[in-house]
Amino acid sequence: MQTLLDSLRHIVGSAHVYTDGDLSAWERDWRKRARGKALAVVRPASTDEVAQIVKACAVFRSRQPDSGVSLVPQGGNTGLVVGATPDDSGRQIVLSLQRMSALRHIDADNLTMTVEAGCVLQNAQQGAEESNLLLPLSMASEGSCTIGGNLACNAGGTQVLRYGNTRDLCLGLEVVNAQGEVWHGLSGLRKDNTGYDLRDLFIGSEGTLGVITAATLKLYPQPAARLTAWAALPSLEHAVRLLGLAQRQLGAGLTGFEVMGQFALSLVAKHFAQLRLPPYPHAPYCVLLENSDPLSEAHARQQFERLLETALEQGCITDAVVAESLSQARQFWHIRESIPLAQPLEGLNIKHDISVPVSGIAEFVRQTDALLQQAIAGVRLVNFGHLGDGNLHYNVQAPQDMDAAAFLARHEEQVNTLVFDSVTRFKGSISAEHGVGSLKVGQLEKYKSPVALDMMRAIKRALDPQNLMNPGRVVRL
Amino acid sequence: MQTLLDSLRHIVGSAHVYTDGDLSAWERDWRKRARGKALAVVRPASTDEVAQIVKACAVFRSRQPDSGVSLVPQGGNTGLVVGATPDDSGRQIVLSLQRMSALRHIDADNLTMTVEAGCVLQNAQQGAEESNLLLPLSMASEGSCTIGGNLACNAGGTQVLRYGNTRDLCLGLEVVNAQGEVWHGLSGLRKDNTGYDLRDLFIGSEGTLGVITAATLKLYPQPAARLTAWAALPSLEHAVRLLGLAQRQLGAGLTGFEVMGQFALSLVAKHFAQLRLPPYPHAPYCVLLENSDPLSEAHARQQFERLLETALEQGCITDAVVAESLSQARQFWHIRESIPLAQPLEGLNIKHDISVPVSGIAEFVRQTDALLQQAIAGVRLVNFGHLGDGNLHYNVQAPQDMDAAAFLARHEEQVNTLVFDSVTRFKGSISAEHGVGSLKVGQLEKYKSPVALDMMRAIKRALDPQNLMNPGRVVRL
Repeated sequence: MQTLLDSLRHIVGSAHVYTDGDLSAWERDWRKRARGKALAVVRPASTDEVAQIVKACAVFRSRQPDSGVSLVPQGGNTGLVVGATPDDSGRQIVLSLQRMSALRHIDADNLTMTVEAGCVLQNAQQGAEESNLLLPLSMASEGSCTIGGNLACNAGGTQVLRYGNTRDLCLGLEVVNAQGEVWHGLSGLRKDNTGYDLRDLFIGSEGTLGVITAATLKLYPQPAARLTAWAALPSLEHAVRLLGLAQRQLGAGLTGFEVMGQFALSLVAKHFAQLRLPPYPHAPYCVLLENSDPLSEAHARQQFERLLETALEQGCITDAVVAESLSQARQFWHIRESIPLAQPLEGLNIKHDISVPVSGIAEFVRQTDALLQQAIAGVRLVNFGHLGDGNLHYNVQAPQDMDAAAFLARHEEQVNTLVFDSVTRFKGSISAEHGVGSLKVGQLEKYKSPVALDMMRAIKRALDPQNLMNPGRVVRL
Repeated sequence: MQTLLDSLRHIVGSAHVYTDGDLSAWERDWRKRARGKALAVVRPASTDEVAQIVKACAVFRSRQPDSGVSLVPQGGNTGLVVGATPDDSGRQIVLSLQRMSALRHIDADNLTMTVEAGCVLQNAQQGAEESNLLLPLSMASEGSCTIGGNLACNAGGTQVLRYGNTRDLCLGLEVVNAQGEVWHGLSGLRKDNTGYDLRDLFIGSEGTLGVITAATLKLYPQPAARLTAWAALPSLEHAVRLLGLAQRQLGAGLTGFEVMGQFALSLVAKHFAQLRLPPYPHAPYCVLLENSDPLSEAHARQQFERLLETALEQGCITDAVVAESLSQARQFWHIRESIPLAQPLEGLNIKHDISVPVSGIAEFVRQTDALLQQAIAGVRLVNFGHLGDGNLHYNVQAPQDMDAAAFLARHEEQVNTLVFDSVTRFKGSISAEHGVGSLKVGQLEKYKSPVALDMMRAIKRALDPQNLMNPGRVVRL
């Protein structure tokens, strides 16, 4: 191992190879579900250094196959599926992209930006904004997560309804493959049909096929106005109807559609009393809508009010309020984003990140709620998410009088099985936007089509025959 | 071979295996650049039959590796790169998806439709329209091309600016892989991060990794109005500025932006005298703009006129006219679509389907025009395309006094090299929307990154180790 560590120090400089001290920032995952032990944390400063690191590991591994040395690429370490932290073998090298954080280039006429993998999402957003352009990727972790990590797990977020997942915002990649070669695939092209779609293969592969070192991303003109509304609804069916109406009336102007169940909001009211929730404490569901407009705020408000009037007339909603100011709009979003923060304050819970077709979502929730109540009387459902994408964070909280830790110990597997079986009946996904990592790799083997799994394994073996890159994540060989 | 043909007849019925008679509809490519000889044309009626056919061929091939038997999937046979017709070996079986043409399902609440691969694009569009929904994939061949073919080569067309390529409209696939197994990947999900992106790997692989048998596609609400305008411009730089302005003012309302050079339009005027062109015969460039509006025609017209006024004020355009009626709008589009029809009437020419970043397109054309004039004095440039996507059909016509056939024989390779070298300098693509097929497979080896080509070959070998599926296309082993 020492020779390998010496090589790494030679490549990036001793100051950027960590082997001692407190490495928990790299070894422990975001949600503190796992703590591994790294052989080293290596922090390259350039694509060339990344390539040299991978090559050095590949050569070492080929000489000492039993060493079990492998690489775990890591960005902001905000992943939710334990996909970017080392296992506890002490043989994995964390390849941190943090130092590669440059915004390389903005091409305003082409509406693109090229950024390095370690660039924090918020910094990329700000870079675009300074050019009066919009990078429409946004999520709660944007102050810490990095573009490389967003790409590696094809992150979703709150603007997917209009702009798609990270995948849809990426035009080109620079990648160091498992052989340590650089694929210069950075492209500002909207059309390029020259062979297999390697870009989308690396996006979402969670570092198991290679290391993304930079990307060219799509930008959009900044909308002239962005308005936010909060509506109260009698049921999820009504939310689906409201979504259809909003899509017809606002077209692509509809840039946000977040649904929140009553219990989820009650947790925010309980644990963040300082937040002023809109006055619908008894509404079974609330929806946060966002309307982006290329013309003006007045135009946006007119369209938005027209939509909400129609929705009231048609009985889709019982009431609604359009934010009067930017600060009120921010407050609405803040409430939405406080749900996942309120949950742990209520106690440990079982999280799911599932999707089903929008047309089936109400029936899915009804059936699954009933099955859960049947299985565990009094269980509480924290239900919220990106309804426009069919994506729910369908989380399960212990009954009021049950100890949360005991609940988890006793019921976690049972609840997961029940929810994922239900998702499968509704032709849904057990991981909508968080990825697989090591957390769901076993469940994937259970729920994913064997034909698809076999093809995934064949691709992994073809592109990473040494199983050097983030082994055991996404797909096990 | 006879035993294989007997198996195929057993699978699909004798009436659906053609070996004799005039098979030119399947053996000759759309642009009549190549004529092959098929061992047979097989026309399955179901996914199961497709799977049986592939399996039968795989088994036969494994027993008789020297037979060289392979499969060429084919949809509407409208491809432009000789990718779906057999070679002249007499050992390739054309697997025609024509009989699998069903529109299986429309899910209006989920905004999706599921169609079989052999469904003609126009029929899919009409199916969506009957549900008051929009399938925003549109191209000149839509009356003949099929969804499977569109997916196999990731077709582009005229609505890419707003809705993306075929890839961007597909949520899920049903695929028969090279082992004859069915991957049931039909999904109506907007978010699904459960492993490698097999969907996008099959999309654009031109039948070389497996056979797409069905797809779930995204739909959109029909816009309330769609308006078309025609503008005259002094130069391509002005067109790029107009594009930026239109993107800022119309946002996602801008659904079409087609640029046409003066010589391209003069060919339409010459060969289709019955078409009434807008009165800008001396404008160096014209642009056709389309504005789709979720509200009303009046609203659309107001926005559109506002845009064109600003463009006039800023000197982006010299004049413009908004179509007063649907029939005038159709006429504008008809003129645009007549350019590729007018070209052959002027004589054989050298076609390119290239893309460069929008910001570089004017300089690319200036430099490449100059180089071509330098190389072949008097050469004429038919320049038109989807400027919003950076995609030009940059075609080269013989000088007025030169015989077209002689021009091609003498200059085709020279012109291709000159144009593709220039594209490469501008970080562009030598095939923006048509694909690779067998026509460009050699050029791809010259212009594509060797690292990317090696990864493509590794994937091809991993998923199709027998090289059974459309061998020699896209990537040669």
